[in-house]
Amino acid sequence: MTQGIFCRHDEAALNDLGGGTARRVLAWNAALMAVEVSFERGAVGAAHTHPHTQCSYVLSGRFRYTVEGESVDMAPGDSIIVPAGAVHGTECLAQGVLLDVFTPAREDFVSQA
Amino acid sequence: MTQGIFCRHDEAALNDLGGGTARRVLAWNAALMAVEVSFERGAVGAAHTHPHTQCSYVLSGRFRYTVEGESVDMAPGDSIIVPAGAVHGTECLAQGVLLDVFTPAREDFVSQA
Repeated sequence: MTQGIFCRHDEAALNDLGGGTARRVLAWNAALMAVEVSFERGAVGAAHTHPHTQCSYVLSGRFRYTVEGESVDMAPGDSIIVPAGAVHGTECLAQGVLLDVFTPAREDFVSQA
Repeated sequence: MTQGIFCRHDEAALNDLGGGTARRVLAWNAALMAVEVSFERGAVGAAHTHPHTQCSYVLSGRFRYTVEGESVDMAPGDSIIVPAGAVHGTECLAQGVLLDVFTPAREDFVSQA
């Protein structure tokens, strides 16, 4: 495939981030990047910020998601947009996986892979 | 929540598009929009193009996805990036749901909702 960028799930590397979390970078180009992040129950995505706009979609599990100090509990199928520059983080309430999509791509994730 | 844009799945309207397909616009802002599209087996997303970059992630089912005349079969967890302006379409091989994420937002989806 020369135009589309295809990523088969089981060919994407799983990177253990420690603390009960792991990341799998999926299909991406400069404009858009899809990333799965798996969490064990109780694992935390510490509050942080970046200039990329982010969408998080709950594939499985349950998450308490915090943006600029306000929290919401999320279940499968729920989604959230984190505006560019907003401080955000999450706590996993039940083991599961988030699909995070970024614009533009998180080039820092690729250089680490 | 004043900074994040949260969308609870069961509060997102389901829009029947006909032909065995339906769309649910999820969380979005100007930069990024998440959309679920459900397909019955045999339903088709006709070949089309738009200036938005798109990521499609298979939530369930199986899809034959075509970008600029080249096809790939996709299963749950597989993902693809459609570059801005590339002609793309899909045929559903087994009933399921795609998560499509666009940058920038598909404002045309919202004006129809």
